[in-house]
Amino acid sequence: MIGSEKRKIYREAGADALFLEADHLRRYFTGFYSTDGYVVVTGENCYFVADPRYFEAAEKALAGTDVTVVAGAFKEALELVEDCKTLGVPYPFLSLSRAEELRGRGFALSDCMPALKQAMEYKSERELSLIQRACDVAEDALSSLLPDLKEGMTESETAALLEYKMRKLGASGTSFETIVAFGANSSVPHHETGETRLKFGDIVLIDFGCKVEGYCSDCTRTFLFGDDGKHGEFKSAYEEVLKAHELVKETVRAGMTGREADEVARGSLRKAGLAEYFTHSLGHGIGLMIHEYPTLSPRGEEVLRDGMVFSDEPGVYLTGKYGIRIEDSCFMKDGKVHSFMHKTERKLIVL
Amino acid sequence: MIGSEKRKIYREAGADALFLEADHLRRYFTGFYSTDGYVVVTGENCYFVADPRYFEAAEKALAGTDVTVVAGAFKEALELVEDCKTLGVPYPFLSLSRAEELRGRGFALSDCMPALKQAMEYKSERELSLIQRACDVAEDALSSLLPDLKEGMTESETAALLEYKMRKLGASGTSFETIVAFGANSSVPHHETGETRLKFGDIVLIDFGCKVEGYCSDCTRTFLFGDDGKHGEFKSAYEEVLKAHELVKETVRAGMTGREADEVARGSLRKAGLAEYFTHSLGHGIGLMIHEYPTLSPRGEEVLRDGMVFSDEPGVYLTGKYGIRIEDSCFMKDGKVHSFMHKTERKLIVL
Repeated sequence: MIGSEKRKIYREAGADALFLEADHLRRYFTGFYSTDGYVVVTGENCYFVADPRYFEAAEKALAGTDVTVVAGAFKEALELVEDCKTLGVPYPFLSLSRAEELRGRGFALSDCMPALKQAMEYKSERELSLIQRACDVAEDALSSLLPDLKEGMTESETAALLEYKMRKLGASGTSFETIVAFGANSSVPHHETGETRLKFGDIVLIDFGCKVEGYCSDCTRTFLFGDDGKHGEFKSAYEEVLKAHELVKETVRAGMTGREADEVARGSLRKAGLAEYFTHSLGHGIGLMIHEYPTLSPRGEEVLRDGMVFSDEPGVYLTGKYGIRIEDSCFMKDGKVHSFMHKTERKLIVL
Repeated sequence: MIGSEKRKIYREAGADALFLEADHLRRYFTGFYSTDGYVVVTGENCYFVADPRYFEAAEKALAGTDVTVVAGAFKEALELVEDCKTLGVPYPFLSLSRAEELRGRGFALSDCMPALKQAMEYKSERELSLIQRACDVAEDALSSLLPDLKEGMTESETAALLEYKMRKLGASGTSFETIVAFGANSSVPHHETGETRLKFGDIVLIDFGCKVEGYCSDCTRTFLFGDDGKHGEFKSAYEEVLKAHELVKETVRAGMTGREADEVARGSLRKAGLAEYFTHSLGHGIGLMIHEYPTLSPRGEEVLRDGMVFSDEPGVYLTGKYGIRIEDSCFMKDGKVHSFMHKTERKLIVL
């Protein structure tokens, strides 16, 4: 018999069975890591269909859980639903080719994403503790990186070293491609980490995160590699971004929409005359994927609630001059915003 | 005006415009790295629709190419196709939710994947040279790793160190989660790298790869960390896997199907009584994705041709005892199989 959370999703979805194949959804339903396989959820059972590369390990890992491991692939997954008329599939995570294949076999499809979203955007204690670990690893790695930064290092070398430190501290990998931007490169919000070398007086912007048991962390810090006395405007802007960042943590409350949360930061930057340089959203949900629900943006109509996890990442970007972004991974608890991050400074560091 | 390769894909697809949003397809059409954005190809133009995080960098990187950068997101991408009736979209890389959205706006969809596949499975000289670089980095990193292996290191630490070396040598990241398996863990074909510690006499299986400008390498080596004299059966099996691996390179020819190539290795292992332990396919295409066309498996009906890139990775797995896999990334040229890999031994190494 499946657990109550799975039963709830199953009922909400209102289909004869759920048929899932996206990596993060397999992980959500089984806790087991694999690059392939299918999860089938009926009213009674949750099956994980694993091919020979994973079957042995899955059987061992999932013994005693509410997941039944079945050897096979697509064909065997289909056999589990042969009596079903309607399959619940997540429309955003099902390819059109697979959808046409399932429809061609006579199944009606219904979108189970609303049911999944409703469950997955509220994190359990276990999920929160895994995200906490992913955040701790990220912050510890950054703390250990700072003394290692040397003039002449490239952005790529810096990213490589930071990723190595996260791996050594227990991460299974990064949650996205690490962004390291030196100097004016920081003004590109998603700069492609490259061969630019670090020099005295450079702004350093690092946007990074790692995974622990599939769960992601996301953090950005901006600092100065020495102060060459030419950063007056940058420093003023930094204070404003920091103010916006902290204001979100202090004043955003459960019950506000993502749009209202975004406006807390955007309004603060507007007063400072910097809103036009805040060219992205305030934040995004974080979980098994680095971008999840809720969305904290001018178009975010979702209401923020206890148990949700999201980034607080205001930034300003002055093309060709400088960029600043300060980001924590946060969660909502007892109606307030709490940061997962307590190990690295948010105020401007000059190395 | 767009280049001849893009025009050919456009014509083959037979739609009014191609509408693409998958990461690797954006990369294929623009060469530019981004985590978001849209590519729209008309008979005349190739547009890359980039949001503010990428617009500035994309404009700079793509100046003088056949790609026109447009600021925006989904809405702006739609404006580029407002006069179109039929959109060519790759069914395996389009979500059902996006498909329904496009159909809801009155577009007819047609699958442009056959046209993309036909073009993308033949690698250009530029693509081959990027895969060569990704293979060189992978092999150099492995060579530099071997002297660093020490008793007591965990699988995770080993993977972290190998990944760091690849990054330092110029990779932008791994092409998949690195598999490091010590001892009997090697018998799990896709073992999840964990906290098992290396000890004298262990089998070490490492399956790894990296990306250079988006292009992947894929390599597996199996060796012994010291010889404790208990590996007679393993050594015999190793010779058979190596024989199968080399036989593929020596005898597979352009014009054979993926099934026939797979049978070269499988037949060789069958003669040795090991075919039942060869539980996966011989190989897969490699490019901007780690698993592409062609498929070298008992069900691979595709014909192998010059310009194709694929793995040659026979393996045998004796549950709870040992596993062996020997894998090179290879390409077809002048009708024959050539390996990208010349820097690491395939014959059994005892460290």
